[in-house]
Amino acid sequence: MSDIAARLVDIVGNSHVLIGDAIPDDYAHDEELTLPPQQPAYVVKPVTAQEVSQLLTTATERGVPVTARGSGCGLSGAARPRAGGMLISFERMNRVLEVDTANQVAVVEPGVTLTELDSATADSGLGYMVHPGELSSSVGGNVGTNAGGMRAVKYGIARHNVLGLQAVLPTGEIIRTGGKIAKLSTGYDLTQLIVGSEGTLALVTEVIVKLHPRLGHNASVLAPFANFDQVTAAVPKIVASGLAPYIVEYIDNMTMAALVHTQNLELGIPDQVRDSCEAYLLVAVENRTADRLMEDVETAGEMLAELGATDAYILEGSAARKLIEARENAFWAAKAAGADDIIDTVVPRASMPKFLSTARSLAAAAGGAAIGCGHAGDGNVHMAIICKDPAKKKQLMTDIFALAMELGGAISGEHGLGRVKTPYFLQLEDPAKISLMYRIKQSFDPAGILNPDVLLPAQGP
Amino acid sequence: MSDIAARLVDIVGNSHVLIGDAIPDDYAHDEELTLPPQQPAYVVKPVTAQEVSQLLTTATERGVPVTARGSGCGLSGAARPRAGGMLISFERMNRVLEVDTANQVAVVEPGVTLTELDSATADSGLGYMVHPGELSSSVGGNVGTNAGGMRAVKYGIARHNVLGLQAVLPTGEIIRTGGKIAKLSTGYDLTQLIVGSEGTLALVTEVIVKLHPRLGHNASVLAPFANFDQVTAAVPKIVASGLAPYIVEYIDNMTMAALVHTQNLELGIPDQVRDSCEAYLLVAVENRTADRLMEDVETAGEMLAELGATDAYILEGSAARKLIEARENAFWAAKAAGADDIIDTVVPRASMPKFLSTARSLAAAAGGAAIGCGHAGDGNVHMAIICKDPAKKKQLMTDIFALAMELGGAISGEHGLGRVKTPYFLQLEDPAKISLMYRIKQSFDPAGILNPDVLLPAQGP
Repeated sequence: MSDIAARLVDIVGNSHVLIGDAIPDDYAHDEELTLPPQQPAYVVKPVTAQEVSQLLTTATERGVPVTARGSGCGLSGAARPRAGGMLISFERMNRVLEVDTANQVAVVEPGVTLTELDSATADSGLGYMVHPGELSSSVGGNVGTNAGGMRAVKYGIARHNVLGLQAVLPTGEIIRTGGKIAKLSTGYDLTQLIVGSEGTLALVTEVIVKLHPRLGHNASVLAPFANFDQVTAAVPKIVASGLAPYIVEYIDNMTMAALVHTQNLELGIPDQVRDSCEAYLLVAVENRTADRLMEDVETAGEMLAELGATDAYILEGSAARKLIEARENAFWAAKAAGADDIIDTVVPRASMPKFLSTARSLAAAAGGAAIGCGHAGDGNVHMAIICKDPAKKKQLMTDIFALAMELGGAISGEHGLGRVKTPYFLQLEDPAKISLMYRIKQSFDPAGILNPDVLLPAQGP
Repeated sequence: MSDIAARLVDIVGNSHVLIGDAIPDDYAHDEELTLPPQQPAYVVKPVTAQEVSQLLTTATERGVPVTARGSGCGLSGAARPRAGGMLISFERMNRVLEVDTANQVAVVEPGVTLTELDSATADSGLGYMVHPGELSSSVGGNVGTNAGGMRAVKYGIARHNVLGLQAVLPTGEIIRTGGKIAKLSTGYDLTQLIVGSEGTLALVTEVIVKLHPRLGHNASVLAPFANFDQVTAAVPKIVASGLAPYIVEYIDNMTMAALVHTQNLELGIPDQVRDSCEAYLLVAVENRTADRLMEDVETAGEMLAELGATDAYILEGSAARKLIEARENAFWAAKAAGADDIIDTVVPRASMPKFLSTARSLAAAAGGAAIGCGHAGDGNVHMAIICKDPAKKKQLMTDIFALAMELGGAISGEHGLGRVKTPYFLQLEDPAKISLMYRIKQSFDPAGILNPDVLLPAQGP
């Protein structure tokens, strides 16, 4: 056993260190589609912040690159280890420490999954409202990527729902940021700097999340539109209506066909409607009483009709749930359909038609295709990229990202950059900002051990 | 004219530089209560980001300390200049550049006041919902202090409503962060790092703020409670009810008496109720229809009665508006009543009773008093400190801040630390965090010109 391995065993115990061939393949990748697996040199499974601190001190002393892993369901390769590196898996730090109803927060360890957190909070009538498609995702992973999901249009993204952290710096120092408080003007917001930093600044060992009341009643309206511009024009009106929808999603007709087919959805939409529409808008509303919900659904339906929808189908109970689940599983549908890559570009929502039509033209010109669905309320466009030729695909993606940035958007709305999107970011982003980010990185991680090559080049710009 | 003055005139023009005796007293202070005025060496009034860039490049080259000023209504002395320093006033950068209804954002220059922004957005049916008491405050000032205010319980604080910035680094580089987008997972969140940094990292020259729909109907319920613990116990139940109140304020009986007296409020509360209550809870609700509003008000009133309120007074129209305005003016009432200092400490809201009773005991033991009101929904406690002896006052405030931190809170919820609260912060905060903050500061401002001695010691910890 190497000197480093012996030290890791000292810290977390023999049964919580995996080395070499003993490392299962699962630890060599996340759910990113394109990168080959990469075995790390060590997998360690700490159970306290103190253990994480000792691991990071060791890594800093020995110059060992460190990658953090929650549930391993990221889509950009941020949890894919470095060759020769240490993978710190938070699977054993999976306790819900507290559900505090008076302050309406939960305090959890990073390895807690969203499903577990949902169960733990259910009886309180409160819930963590960040809802990325994958509910096996961990809260730590949500913090790392600044997860979003469908409900962001009402409840915000992880950033808006993370109030405080315990985090370990690469130097081994353990800090606490924020707290069970929603207001704070006391120094730099270290919480928000760490949220979305994809494991490059500090490792999170405890998270205070905001809980919202669970409203008892919800329903969805599905509206087909003849053309996509109408969908985008409808969105701000729906959002500004005061109905406070918690889901505002678009689904293009090809994606809807794939979802209906692969997941056996029965939506009751006649063939001639389906054939004549370019995209669907799915609007979900919720309220504290059943009566108000029914009124809101009717109002939403009337508004959608006025805004040009061919029709409006009210989906209650299982039909709504199935469609929303199918939408959440769109990634798996895209994977099954042979997508060569996926993107989750964000643009100002009014720019979605221009972005989508131009991106589709770019894809067609490259001999490929770009199809998808997305968070219409947020301008967060998910597309499956079909383009077999690697060089052409790379150029196509560069062009699509550049287009999003020209329109005032960014490469990723919620998946993060990870190992696969970082090179595009470094190519397209303002060098002054890259350089500033690198100086910030150094202020946390002078030895550069935390997830090198993610967000920034390991050796600096 | 000095060499520096000549350079400043070159940059912004002769009529936009003030030097020496030509500088009006107003520029020597903000609304902080305790510090004597401090004249800067220069006041400059740029009108473009390029001019700000040239000013900062000059300041970095010559080592001139720079303080930014919006409306000068801050309460912690962050806009109080340094002796020999340059005050950059954003009064001429006061244009609303765009009200974008499709994306539901406004793009404004930092000198725009909240009153001006409110007027500019009124016709759109949308509004910037951050509502600190002082509506002559500027958007730039809101960004600098991460302003909060009464509506934060529903709409969040400045941080949650600032989507993007144009900012000038002390090196003169002009960067853009964020955008007209609510979701973003593309590198470190520089927007959120700059928000609340009190002019110590970069100067903001453009702000993209989120706009929310203005709901047409609102009303308030005022409920007296016999004791403060009942008030705090009621708050989470009101917030979790699904009523989505946009104001949840407490006002202690002494403060209420002062407000009623100084502002001639007619609230219709009988004397015996007033004499027997320890504090009031003010709950404001809003809805998109008048019918729903009336139902919500009734529900709120019933809930408050069940939660132990002595009574519940529905305030409509001008009575509600006057009380809310009086509450917003509580600072001026405290000032007029001879307050020696003010604090805006934040604690987890369930800890408010313990915090308030202990703080009052500490004040009494120091021969003084601590009275106030605050944002009950957020645990943000505003207190006027009455304590004439400066050394005793300093110790009392140290003890109160330490108490808040022990309870999981922080020194300031929304006013910021400025020049007056920074020494307490440096004394009480974890040295590892101070040190990390200082390294972050250096990554933006290697020459240390931006607001030295605010948040961090000028020469490092």
